[in-house]
Amino acid sequence: MRVLGIDPGLTRCGVGVVEGDVGRPLRMVDVGVVRTDPALPVARRLVTIEKGLEAWIEEHRPDAVAVERVFSQHNVRTVMGTAQASGIAMVVAARREIPVALHTPSEVKAAVSGSGRADKAQVGAMVTRLLRLEAAPKPADAADALALAICHIWRGGAQSRIENALQRAASR
Amino acid sequence: MRVLGIDPGLTRCGVGVVEGDVGRPLRMVDVGVVRTDPALPVARRLVTIEKGLEAWIEEHRPDAVAVERVFSQHNVRTVMGTAQASGIAMVVAARREIPVALHTPSEVKAAVSGSGRADKAQVGAMVTRLLRLEAAPKPADAADALALAICHIWRGGAQSRIENALQRAASR
Repeated sequence: MRVLGIDPGLTRCGVGVVEGDVGRPLRMVDVGVVRTDPALPVARRLVTIEKGLEAWIEEHRPDAVAVERVFSQHNVRTVMGTAQASGIAMVVAARREIPVALHTPSEVKAAVSGSGRADKAQVGAMVTRLLRLEAAPKPADAADALALAICHIWRGGAQSRIENALQRAASR
Repeated sequence: MRVLGIDPGLTRCGVGVVEGDVGRPLRMVDVGVVRTDPALPVARRLVTIEKGLEAWIEEHRPDAVAVERVFSQHNVRTVMGTAQASGIAMVVAARREIPVALHTPSEVKAAVSGSGRADKAQVGAMVTRLLRLEAAPKPADAADALALAICHIWRGGAQSRIENALQRAASR
């Protein structure tokens, strides 16, 4: 399973592609950031994000896209831009019929570190270890995107196992 | 000048097309709502909004698109969906090189009613009068979209007059 994780943001969208399955080693395929120029109008910046994410999907053909679920509670100053960027990320994937999943920051932290309250450094360290990288991906948005992809592979895998078990139980 | 006003929302996007210039009568070209099914996943609903707004732009070929500027202060429960829908509206216009303008609810109310604190009924009544309609457009989102388009025509006009005056002054 190949997953594109997207940590949405108007100035920087973290993007990371991870391949793997539950119970098997994970492999980082690619990681990066889609940036936009804060001097440009928001509409123009959103088009840059759209084109950037489309290029990532074109190149890596993910089986699923995992986007960080944005909450209105924190970061009130930047939350509107983040929400708009997350909307673009969802549309770019959904209009190509690629399944889109949303994971909360706590779910992602818990998946990679065992604690929903892990800090940035802990997430970065765990991503580095799980993907057997030489150093933590920078900036933090890039590491977060990889963490999102890992979270999706593990949660998705657990979800499939439950569904399979239910199907087996039902067919007995 | 033909303007498409968009009042963004995840469940209902109001859309209204108005033609006119400052100092001349306004004409309503079309008004309506792009709806999405709340039972569907958000990503799928955003694709429906994208396709719906694209159809409006294709049909009416506006010179400009005016989108309501979303604030994170009010309506915390629905604000994320509204922000995502507004992002889609901006991208649909900007990637076709159609100028996108954002107007705040207060600016729109002040433009059509003279007061930034006008209520929904007042805005509906003024839109009906200014466009010489037989009844206020329903739902309120549709009337708000028309008010956005009117606001843009009048503000855009004022803006152009100022720019023209500055150019004349500069060329003397």
